[in-house]
Amino acid sequence: MKFVIIGGDAAGMSAASRAKRNDPTLEITVLEATGDVSYSACGMPYNIADPAREMDDLVVRTAETFRQKQGIDLRLGHTVTRIDRASKKVLGIKSSGEGFEVSYDKLLIATGARPRKLKVPGEDLPGVLALKSLEDGRAIKRYLSAHNVKSVLIVGMGYIGLEMAEAFHARGLKIDMIKPSQRLLPYLPQEMADVVAAELKEKGVGIHLGQKIVAVKSRDGSLLVSAESEEFAVDLALIGVGIVPNSELAEDAGLELGPAKSIAVDKSLRTTDPEIFSAGDCADAFHILTGKRVWVPLALRANRAGWAVGDNVTGRHVELPGIAGTAVFKVLDLEVARTGLTLEEATRAGFDAVQSTIKSRSRAHAHPGAANIYVNLVAEKNSGRLLGGSIVGKEGAAHRINSLVVALHAGMIVEDFFQSDMAYAPPFSPVWDPLLTAANQLLKQV
Amino acid sequence: MKFVIIGGDAAGMSAASRAKRNDPTLEITVLEATGDVSYSACGMPYNIADPAREMDDLVVRTAETFRQKQGIDLRLGHTVTRIDRASKKVLGIKSSGEGFEVSYDKLLIATGARPRKLKVPGEDLPGVLALKSLEDGRAIKRYLSAHNVKSVLIVGMGYIGLEMAEAFHARGLKIDMIKPSQRLLPYLPQEMADVVAAELKEKGVGIHLGQKIVAVKSRDGSLLVSAESEEFAVDLALIGVGIVPNSELAEDAGLELGPAKSIAVDKSLRTTDPEIFSAGDCADAFHILTGKRVWVPLALRANRAGWAVGDNVTGRHVELPGIAGTAVFKVLDLEVARTGLTLEEATRAGFDAVQSTIKSRSRAHAHPGAANIYVNLVAEKNSGRLLGGSIVGKEGAAHRINSLVVALHAGMIVEDFFQSDMAYAPPFSPVWDPLLTAANQLLKQV
Repeated sequence: MKFVIIGGDAAGMSAASRAKRNDPTLEITVLEATGDVSYSACGMPYNIADPAREMDDLVVRTAETFRQKQGIDLRLGHTVTRIDRASKKVLGIKSSGEGFEVSYDKLLIATGARPRKLKVPGEDLPGVLALKSLEDGRAIKRYLSAHNVKSVLIVGMGYIGLEMAEAFHARGLKIDMIKPSQRLLPYLPQEMADVVAAELKEKGVGIHLGQKIVAVKSRDGSLLVSAESEEFAVDLALIGVGIVPNSELAEDAGLELGPAKSIAVDKSLRTTDPEIFSAGDCADAFHILTGKRVWVPLALRANRAGWAVGDNVTGRHVELPGIAGTAVFKVLDLEVARTGLTLEEATRAGFDAVQSTIKSRSRAHAHPGAANIYVNLVAEKNSGRLLGGSIVGKEGAAHRINSLVVALHAGMIVEDFFQSDMAYAPPFSPVWDPLLTAANQLLKQV
Repeated sequence: MKFVIIGGDAAGMSAASRAKRNDPTLEITVLEATGDVSYSACGMPYNIADPAREMDDLVVRTAETFRQKQGIDLRLGHTVTRIDRASKKVLGIKSSGEGFEVSYDKLLIATGARPRKLKVPGEDLPGVLALKSLEDGRAIKRYLSAHNVKSVLIVGMGYIGLEMAEAFHARGLKIDMIKPSQRLLPYLPQEMADVVAAELKEKGVGIHLGQKIVAVKSRDGSLLVSAESEEFAVDLALIGVGIVPNSELAEDAGLELGPAKSIAVDKSLRTTDPEIFSAGDCADAFHILTGKRVWVPLALRANRAGWAVGDNVTGRHVELPGIAGTAVFKVLDLEVARTGLTLEEATRAGFDAVQSTIKSRSRAHAHPGAANIYVNLVAEKNSGRLLGGSIVGKEGAAHRINSLVVALHAGMIVEDFFQSDMAYAPPFSPVWDPLLTAANQLLKQV
C-alpha cells in the first residue's frame, strides 16, 4: 500500500514515522514544498532572540534520517498543485520547474498554514517580515544581522507577536506593538490582560490599541508604517496578524471545509473522502466542551493528529476525542495560559456560565521570590461543570493550566476540583493553591 | 453555643476563623499550649536558611488579630491535660502553673504532632535538635547564631531532613545525612531516587544509608554521634525521623484511634464522639483510591479539615472525600513530587497494578535551560484507572503533579489522560508533555 503525505512538518512527519513503525512494509512518500522538515517552529522566537544560535538547531530530525534510518521516501522542493481523487494521484511541480505526479492509496494533507497578509500597500517591502516557516525565521535573522536594526513595529498581539516582543527585547530593540481592536488579549478578563499590558510597558514596549495599518513605505533604508492615526518610523516590521490554513488543495479537490476555511476532518482525521486524511495546522478539530468544530492550529494537536493518521492508515482504528483549546505562551517575565471556554465563548455556545477571577501568590506566605498570580475559572451554573479558565503570572501559570485541562477532559465539577489534594510546599504555592482559591470563589456562584 | 478548640495552628485557627465567619454569634475559645498561633510551619527550613530573616515573619495572623478583629477568645500557654466527655469540659494547666477548665458544646482536637524521638542516649544534649514547632525553628536559629556551627548530621531523609539539607547548604555547612533503611526515598522508583541522591552528592552532602544511630555524646563543645558502623563528629545534629500524632488526650478520653495512633475521624471530621471533631496533623483521613484510613499529616489537609469543622459546627454539613496523599518538596536544585499510590502500595492494597517510568526534558527541543525530568505513573491493569505517580526534576515537577492529582480525583483512565490537550510552549515542556509521554508508555501495559 502506498501512503502519500503532502507536507513534511509536525503532522506529516509524525504520521510518516508512526505509520512506518506500525508497518515497516508500508511505502511512504512525503512531498514537502520547502527544504525543511520536522522542526520546532514554536522555538523560533527563542532562537531569533539569540544571534549566536543557528536556526537549524531547531531541526528535530533531518531529511537524511527519515530517508536512511526510517526508509521514508522524503522529497523536498515538491509543491503539490492538485489532487486528482478520481485517479488517486497528486500532481505538482518540483523546485527545478519540472512537473511530477505520484499515486496514492491513502493520502494525508498536512499542508499547514501561512501568515495572514495585511493587504496594505508596501507589505512586500524588504524588512516587512512574518514568522511561520523555518525559512521565515532565517529571513528575520538574516535581516537583523545584515541591517542596523534598532527599532521594530510588531503588527498583531497574538502569541507570535508577543513571543517576538520578548525576542526583540532580548536583542535590545525599541519595540512598538499595534493591533486594530481595543483589547490586548480578548480571551483574558480585563484585569488579567492589564497585567500583561503592564509587563510590556514596564519593559519599554509601546502598545497601540484600536489602530489599523494603512500603508508601509520605504524611507532612507528604514520603513515608515502608517496606521490610522499614527506613523512609525522603524527598521523592521513584523506582521503577526494570524495565520490562514493551506486548504486550497483540499477545497479544489471538493473536500469539505471547516471553520476559517480549515479542512474538515472527523474524529479519525478523515476528510469527506475516506481515503484522504488531514492533520496539523490546515485541519479542524472538535472542541471537547461544545462538541463543535473549531480551528485551533497548535503543535500538540498537529503531532497527535499526525500520529493518529499513522495509526489509522495501518489498520489501528484511532479516534481523537478533541481539543480543549489549551494554549500557553511566555512574554518577557510573564507566563500566560488558557484552556477551555472563556465566559464569553461559553455564553455564546449556549452555556449558562459564571466565572471567578482571583489574585493570589506564586509561593507561600513570606517565601522569598513570591509573585502575583491571577486565575480565572469558568463553570456552568447549576451543574457546576468546569468550562475553562486562564492563568497569568511570573511563575507557575504554564504548568498549572494542565490541572484544569485534565479537569475539563474529565468533565469535572468545581466542587470536586476544589477538593483535589493538590501539592503544597512553600517554594511552589500558598497552602491553598491559587487554582483551589479560584475554585472556592467560583463555588459561591454555581 | 460554645465551640472550644484545642490547638491554635493551621487546623485549629482555620476552624475558628471559618466558624466565626459563618456565625459571628458563636462563642469560640482556642486553647493553645505554646505562645504561637497560625504560622507557616512548612516555611521554617527556608527561614532558617537565611540568618537575616526573623522566625516570626512566618506568622500569618497574630493572636491579637484573632482576638480583636475576629472576636475569638484565644488563650496562649494553655495546655489541656484532660477531656471530660461526661461533663463536656476540658481541663488543663496554664503556663503560670495555675489550673483551668472550660466547658464546650462542640470540641475540636487540633493538637497536631510532635517529632518522633530516636530513643538513644544523649538525644537531649544541647545541639541535638528537631523541627516541628515555631519554637523548634527559633531554637535551631539561636543555636546556629550562638555557636560556631560548621558541620551537621541530619538523621532521617524525609521531607524535613531534605529541606533542612538545603537550608544548611545555603548556610555553608558541611552536611551528612543518615537513615536506617537502604532506600533514600522509598516511594520513588530506584532510578528516580538515584537522581535525588546524585543531586545531594553533587552539592557535597554525604549520604549514609542502612545505619541506625546508637548514641550521642558531647565532646569539646561539639557532638559525637555514633551510628552502627560510623561515627560523626559534628557541631549540630538535626533529628528528622518523622512525627507522631498528639493523640493521647483523645485516647485517654476513649475516642477511637486510626493508623499510627492518629485520631480516627469520619468524612465530616467527627471522632467517635459526635460532639468532638479532630483535624490537622493529629487526625487521620480516607484515601480516595483505597477508601481506607491513612495518616498523612500535611498542611493543605489540616487547613481543609479545619475549615470543614468550622462549617460543620455552624450547621453547614460538609464531608471531605479524602486525600490522594500528594506531597512535594524541594531539595537543593531538585523538585520532588508524588501523589496517589506507588506500585508497591497499589499492589499491597490489592490492585493489579502496572507502572511506567520515563525520562524526558523540561523544555522543548534545543530550548536553552532544558533539564531532565522523570515521571513515574501507576495504573490498574485492565481498567486502566490511574492510581498514582511521582515526578523528579529541576523544574516543572511540583506543578505538574497536580494534573495527576486531578486525574486521580476524577477516577480517570490512562487513555483519557493521554488525550488531554495539555499546554505547550518551548520554555515549559516538549510538545508532548512528560506526563503525556509517561501515559503513552503506560498505555502499552494496561
